Amino acid sequence: MAGAGLSLVPAFTRAANSIPPSAPGAVYMGDFAAAKLETVKCAFIGVGARGSGHAAQIAQIEGTDIVAICDLYEDLAKKSADRCKENGGGRHKNLKTYTGGEDDWKKMLKKEKPDAVFIATPWKDHAPMAIEAMNQGAHAFVEVPLALTIQEMWDIVDTSEKTGKHCMMMENVNYGREELIYLNMCRQGVIGELLHGEAAYIHELRGQMNEVERGTGSWRTYHYAKRNGNLYPTHGLGPVAQYMNLARGEDNFKFVNSFSSPGMGRNLYAKKNFDADHKWNALDFKGGDINTSIIKTAMGRTIMVQWDETSPRPYTRLNLIQGTKGTLAGFPNRVAIEGGVEGVTDSHHEWAEGDKLEAIFEKYEHPLYKRLGALAKKMGGHGGMDFIMRYRIIECLRKGEPLDQNVYEGCFWSAVGPLSEKSVAQNGAPQEFPDFTRGKWQSTKALDIIG
Amino acid sequence: MAGAGLSLVPAFTRAANSIPPSAPGAVYMGDFAAAKLETVKCAFIGVGARGSGHAAQIAQIEGTDIVAICDLYEDLAKKSADRCKENGGGRHKNLKTYTGGEDDWKKMLKKEKPDAVFIATPWKDHAPMAIEAMNQGAHAFVEVPLALTIQEMWDIVDTSEKTGKHCMMMENVNYGREELIYLNMCRQGVIGELLHGEAAYIHELRGQMNEVERGTGSWRTYHYAKRNGNLYPTHGLGPVAQYMNLARGEDNFKFVNSFSSPGMGRNLYAKKNFDADHKWNALDFKGGDINTSIIKTAMGRTIMVQWDETSPRPYTRLNLIQGTKGTLAGFPNRVAIEGGVEGVTDSHHEWAEGDKLEAIFEKYEHPLYKRLGALAKKMGGHGGMDFIMRYRIIECLRKGEPLDQNVYEGCFWSAVGPLSEKSVAQNGAPQEFPDFTRGKWQSTKALDIIG
Repeated sequence: MAGAGLSLVPAFTRAANSIPPSAPGAVYMGDFAAAKLETVKCAFIGVGARGSGHAAQIAQIEGTDIVAICDLYEDLAKKSADRCKENGGGRHKNLKTYTGGEDDWKKMLKKEKPDAVFIATPWKDHAPMAIEAMNQGAHAFVEVPLALTIQEMWDIVDTSEKTGKHCMMMENVNYGREELIYLNMCRQGVIGELLHGEAAYIHELRGQMNEVERGTGSWRTYHYAKRNGNLYPTHGLGPVAQYMNLARGEDNFKFVNSFSSPGMGRNLYAKKNFDADHKWNALDFKGGDINTSIIKTAMGRTIMVQWDETSPRPYTRLNLIQGTKGTLAGFPNRVAIEGGVEGVTDSHHEWAEGDKLEAIFEKYEHPLYKRLGALAKKMGGHGGMDFIMRYRIIECLRKGEPLDQNVYEGCFWSAVGPLSEKSVAQNGAPQEFPDFTRGKWQSTKALDIIG
Repeated sequence: MAGAGLSLVPAFTRAANSIPPSAPGAVYMGDFAAAKLETVKCAFIGVGARGSGHAAQIAQIEGTDIVAICDLYEDLAKKSADRCKENGGGRHKNLKTYTGGEDDWKKMLKKEKPDAVFIATPWKDHAPMAIEAMNQGAHAFVEVPLALTIQEMWDIVDTSEKTGKHCMMMENVNYGREELIYLNMCRQGVIGELLHGEAAYIHELRGQMNEVERGTGSWRTYHYAKRNGNLYPTHGLGPVAQYMNLARGEDNFKFVNSFSSPGMGRNLYAKKNFDADHKWNALDFKGGDINTSIIKTAMGRTIMVQWDETSPRPYTRLNLIQGTKGTLAGFPNRVAIEGGVEGVTDSHHEWAEGDKLEAIFEKYEHPLYKRLGALAKKMGGHGGMDFIMRYRIIECLRKGEPLDQNVYEGCFWSAVGPLSEKSVAQNGAPQEFPDFTRGKWQSTKALDIIG
């Protein structure tokens, strides 16, 4: 949004490890199930590249009624609304658009009273919009990261607990086929006790800097310039956190230490690709090109989380989970199990990989993927993971079941952002995670075989 | 050696970041060249699996005279001596063996006055033996790690500077073909400015616990049990440190933070494979199964260094070096360069790997490997890297040239051991590297195209 460069991150107003008291009447949201909804009235705030995809698919899912679409840009709002109507086969006949004004999303919430609001706006708007949505009686579904500061995360938790409304960060990667298989293998004990994980979002995206006016680069570029840490941890971390059942009975986030390399790539890119007087050449990109953070859990497990959207190297989320009896890894997919993988390898000194993995992948195919995989492939969206996530959101709301990702998980996964910035600024000193569950994570059910 | 479990690590007697004054007359050893030796009189302390390999190959290299072999075990000393004589074709006719007594190595040094002593004994003996060797007038060549404590490292540095004798830790991996190619590519600017590296020694070696009497497991098992950190960092770190020219004019080690996972694998292995009353089942293995450490350099670069000799997963040293224009990685070998690898890939979003790398590997073949690679392959020893290292040691001594690895590099690389233990014990708090060069690293020549 316009002016995003000026007030990028709200002030950090509360110590990370001081736990504020709950509001009176607050409900713990760990295994919270909201009342069943026969039809889910859905509204969307932000229908750019990402939000329009949410809207278009959710419009096709049974039991939804798309009531409103809001975007700063009229053409985007209209295009998305048209597509929803088309995809709904005439079902979404009351769909209204809200566009043009900075506060139209607030008007929309007040007027349309949706059951669920999907938020895919610039990062700084996530928390205020999620909080207002819940206060207006809607469940909030928010793009990653959920929020930018620890204070915002507490405000989200408190609002959710006070209103009894869900606030789910939409981490789509947890619904990838491989991630679901690895989750299943972890739960079946295939790799023994879990010890260590590795996660990343290494994705060269310098080209977004060409989106100077309306695209992601128009606002995200300022984050690269002004902040130094792991600003985008959740795609890699979400799945690993659920393998380990973090914040879900078994274990929890405890510390994070963070380290950034020098930041050179964005300055070089700006110099090479933009005129000397272009606004990107007026910035000094202080964020390191690659950030490496280490999370330590309450049980003492370790998770390495890397982030690099600048360096010229291939994409990876690492997706590694290591246990006492074996290791599962991604990019490319590899499996090593003590004594060998049945029918593929003779020992754990060798990876089972490539086509040879298919037998073991089929053996441990996740029930959710068995049920929805074929449809998801057809529907698409990052290979189907987007569809499964959207389907599950609507399904859980209609059945009145707990969501697959609770509000605390969204906060813990996103908290790596501001905590890593603090650690980098302190030469890698450990930062304690605030316990967003206020000690209740131990009572939360393990994420078992969902779906 | 017997009783290794009792006094595993000497006391830590000096703060890591306090720099003691040099001895009067100390010579800086950064680019030190010793007087030429026409023939290098060589002696060996410890000729088990590793040391006997050093002896057997060095016996074949032109210009060596093997004068003595020392081992606690008579059969090992005799077998190694016989092999040296055979390999030397009658050249090493004065070769004596010293065996049986704990102090025979001291007698040997005093009596034989060798030019170079090769030390491949349990870790705790490295420093005392290297120091005594230098004091007795010999250059010391020591297995990895060079020493166990910061105090020992200072003592090694001071003895080397006082005596004008080399003390080189024999990091063989720096002489691997791929490592030499990557070094060459870094120096040629193929991946631009270096930003980040990754190194590891992930090598499942639980089987060494079966070597209860004389093998590596007989003493190393106690280290796993009693220490918690990255105890064996140098094989992965050495090459990455030289890519970055750390301690060699360009940059240097500054901080390390370290994190260990829970330690479960060795207890499980002991329980499964040894009787309940076996000595390994009396130990509580406090070392984490996988350790992840992060080094921060003076220039702000990052190096991740992992260590795991316990978990059932395939071998890797990672061997990753990332720059502003590309990334080189190992296990398996992969290359990504901005805009693509000529004739192989069209962009940096894809790795060049497998057979397709051969053209670029030949293009950047290191001069040293061009000269010695064919012979090294024939001679063997970890694919030839051992031979090249041994050949270079003798060659540099005979030519009176600086060694490829100086005493400070051996100390910095090994210092990750004790510093990581301290960091792990302090929840990952940063530990400062002592500057073993006392500020002189900035005057040391870059490691350029050696050989």
